[in-house]
Amino acid sequence: MLFTDRLFKKVEPVWSSYLDHPFVKGIGEGTVDEDKFIHYMRQDYVYLIEYSRVFAIGSAKAKDLKTMTIFANLLHGTMNYEMDLHREYAAKIGISNEELEATGPSSTMTAYTSYMISQAQLGGVENSIAAVLACAWSYSFIGKELARWPGALDHELYGNWVRMYSSDEFAKIAEDCKELINDITKDKPEDELKALEDIVLRTSYFEYMFWDMAENISTWPVKELAR
Amino acid sequence: MLFTDRLFKKVEPVWSSYLDHPFVKGIGEGTVDEDKFIHYMRQDYVYLIEYSRVFAIGSAKAKDLKTMTIFANLLHGTMNYEMDLHREYAAKIGISNEELEATGPSSTMTAYTSYMISQAQLGGVENSIAAVLACAWSYSFIGKELARWPGALDHELYGNWVRMYSSDEFAKIAEDCKELINDITKDKPEDELKALEDIVLRTSYFEYMFWDMAENISTWPVKELAR
Amino acid sequence: MLFTDRLFKKVEPVWSSYLDHPFVKGIGEGTVDEDKFIHYMRQDYVYLIEYSRVFAIGSAKAKDLKTMTIFANLLHGTMNYEMDLHREYAAKIGISNEELEATGPSSTMTAYTSYMISQAQLGGVENSIAAVLACAWSYSFIGKELARWPGALDHELYGNWVRMYSSDEFAKIAEDCKELINDITKDKPEDELKALEDIVLRTSYFEYMFWDMAENISTWPVKELAR
Amino acid sequence: MLFTDRLFKKVEPVWSSYLDHPFVKGIGEGTVDEDKFIHYMRQDYVYLIEYSRVFAIGSAKAKDLKTMTIFANLLHGTMNYEMDLHREYAAKIGISNEELEATGPSSTMTAYTSYMISQAQLGGVENSIAAVLACAWSYSFIGKELARWPGALDHELYGNWVRMYSSDEFAKIAEDCKELINDITKDKPEDELKALEDIVLRTSYFEYMFWDMAENISTWPVKELAR
Repeated sequence: MLFTDRLFKKVEPVWSSYLDHPFVKGIGEGTVDEDKFIHYMRQDYVYLIEYSRVFAIGSAKAKDLKTMTIFANLLHGTMNYEMDLHREYAAKIGISNEELEATGPSSTMTAYTSYMISQAQLGGVENSIAAVLACAWSYSFIGKELARWPGALDHELYGNWVRMYSSDEFAKIAEDCKELINDITKDKPEDELKALEDIVLRTSYFEYMFWDMAENISTWPVKELAR
Repeated sequence: MLFTDRLFKKVEPVWSSYLDHPFVKGIGEGTVDEDKFIHYMRQDYVYLIEYSRVFAIGSAKAKDLKTMTIFANLLHGTMNYEMDLHREYAAKIGISNEELEATGPSSTMTAYTSYMISQAQLGGVENSIAAVLACAWSYSFIGKELARWPGALDHELYGNWVRMYSSDEFAKIAEDCKELINDITKDKPEDELKALEDIVLRTSYFEYMFWDMAENISTWPVKELAR
Repeated sequence: MLFTDRLFKKVEPVWSSYLDHPFVKGIGEGTVDEDKFIHYMRQDYVYLIEYSRVFAIGSAKAKDLKTMTIFANLLHGTMNYEMDLHREYAAKIGISNEELEATGPSSTMTAYTSYMISQAQLGGVENSIAAVLACAWSYSFIGKELARWPGALDHELYGNWVRMYSSDEFAKIAEDCKELINDITKDKPEDELKALEDIVLRTSYFEYMFWDMAENISTWPVKELAR
Repeated sequence: MLFTDRLFKKVEPVWSSYLDHPFVKGIGEGTVDEDKFIHYMRQDYVYLIEYSRVFAIGSAKAKDLKTMTIFANLLHGTMNYEMDLHREYAAKIGISNEELEATGPSSTMTAYTSYMISQAQLGGVENSIAAVLACAWSYSFIGKELARWPGALDHELYGNWVRMYSSDEFAKIAEDCKELINDITKDKPEDELKALEDIVLRTSYFEYMFWDMAENISTWPVKELAR
């Protein structure tokens, strides 16, 4: 069995629950509040930057040139293209570059990316790929599903999101990540596979919390002190 | 002005809010539910392990033998004495060693320690000391305050907690950490001081969230999926 | 005074000594033994891979998006273009891709890149830029000098090397690195500047040792055991 | 077969060559020049500090509390006892504390410890133990051998060295390290074992180069520029 097949069995209930989440459903049905989506987009912008650090760590720790180059390309692609796409999309829904740049990180964004970065630092290169996998793969999973919902691809504001994550280009990124983890985990002992599975599961939980953060437009759960 | 004076101005409103938090008040007044305290103690046990990684990172990154030794001693002290104290105290309130070891990390514990570890890894040694400061110092702050509350030091279950964190030994740890950050930040430019201040502020927020986690006996805010 | 002006004063005697080194002189005069140059090219190929890890670490640790992107671009450029140039040049002097890939790291190559990587890991982002500076800048320094030597640019085998490192494109990389370190060190206290200066000086020494390694076709100074 | 048995087969020829090295022989026969030994002791003092960073990294990266504590104890023991022993021994042969502290790192010391630190950082916890193994184990190997040489244990200046590294206490440290790597490598795939073997082999080469550095009282092979 491919390691990604084993992983999918484990995360499938979590990822399926995303599709029932009011924020994700709201994107697919085109009914999500603009304020919530704007909060999501801004936090996702900061997320992309922090997330990219894991690609950088993966490239630094890679054991062969091929893996090193894959991570370098993911890093470069995010820095130079994905973030541009993000800025363009944000502009369309009324968020300026200045607002994007000025976004204060929310507690959930901070928690999720800190978890990925700390796991990537504390282990070998396998941890870097395990840390980014759930994000890439579950977005592709959600994108493909929502693309089947009536009108989801064509919605004025959110159709762009659905098109982006149901695209072949994005599916390719997810597939590359899956291939990488299958390669890297070949013949690894069970305790190490279990630890990697745990990273994929925890990041899947953090994905759920990220949808919650968007739905609740939450920043820091510290009364009066939130910035 | 000492850097710790500047920091205290910034975090004082957050730390004062801890004293109004039902869980902290409950410790001082001896009224907190045992279930909540048991949840807290178990998460705090896992926290201590992850927290100690920051001491280890600080020791690895220290620029001089003195700083390297201070971090090594904090690490060694936590691994060999603090955790023993923790185990003894846990035993008194009915938590076995096996239960402590089997504790699954909560999302808040994971978020907080991942943040500390990632910040410690991403910067120089100054980030390590900034990351651990709020925990050591705010516990000393709370301990000293609660020690003045009637009966707090003598409560059958929670008096031990108040005695530990109001003790001179613990105050010494907090003072050592303060001295270390004042030394390390000497003559640093304002943008770097601001970044360190931000770490101390964020960890202070996470401390608040940790009290919330205890009060709500929360694990992962992922319905049905929490482990 | 720019920090790079201060640095140049410190490293100038070391870099000038490169121009008297038989291997470097041999490139400029077109007289270096092919065997020595082949050994150099193969070790330099492995060097480029290890060196690029420092760009990756710099990108992971960058404090702002601009710096993160500069490092990501340097990493990507090396992985995708510089190494191709290297492979093409190697092919011209009779080294196959397989031979390049099969190169065992020499002790000097290992020492130099391990030093850069460990310094990059042990400090903040400023260490990453300090670690790569001497290589980029001193190659530009050598390239410009040798380009003035009669026939150096046109030599059948080594003209390519001189053209590459005296080119405006390469000078731009060196200038970008210089700008980066000047930005990052602004207002830093003297003890931190001194530590960065030390990294630039040590890497300059390792550069000298790398020329020695080439001249002596040395691998590991462990009799009978060298691989 | 224990992984350490496999390792021993690989490094045995390298370690045996130490016993033929003039510096090591000179310790065993009590004939080594004091100047050489003083250079060795000073570089070894700096080495101990840098080497200890690997224990710290190992503690930070450990996957379980037991391993984390073993590394913390090795770090603490080195910082608080080994370095004191070193200082006392140095004092006996006429090196003051100030001289020890003022030692400039040699290129070989820098190369060896940078290699250990960079490998520890670039991989999981298994790299940390692989990086420190050759030093601990080969010193025990040498110590036990020299202890059998006539008069080696009793020499006025060097007997102390032979007694230290042939002692049961030191053998215990080497045994602990061996046990740790056997535990950590259990069921690991062959490519990972091969990579760890390579770290143990390279550090064994660096050990040989360290004896050479002592014998030649070498600092940096950069004429006129050595500090």
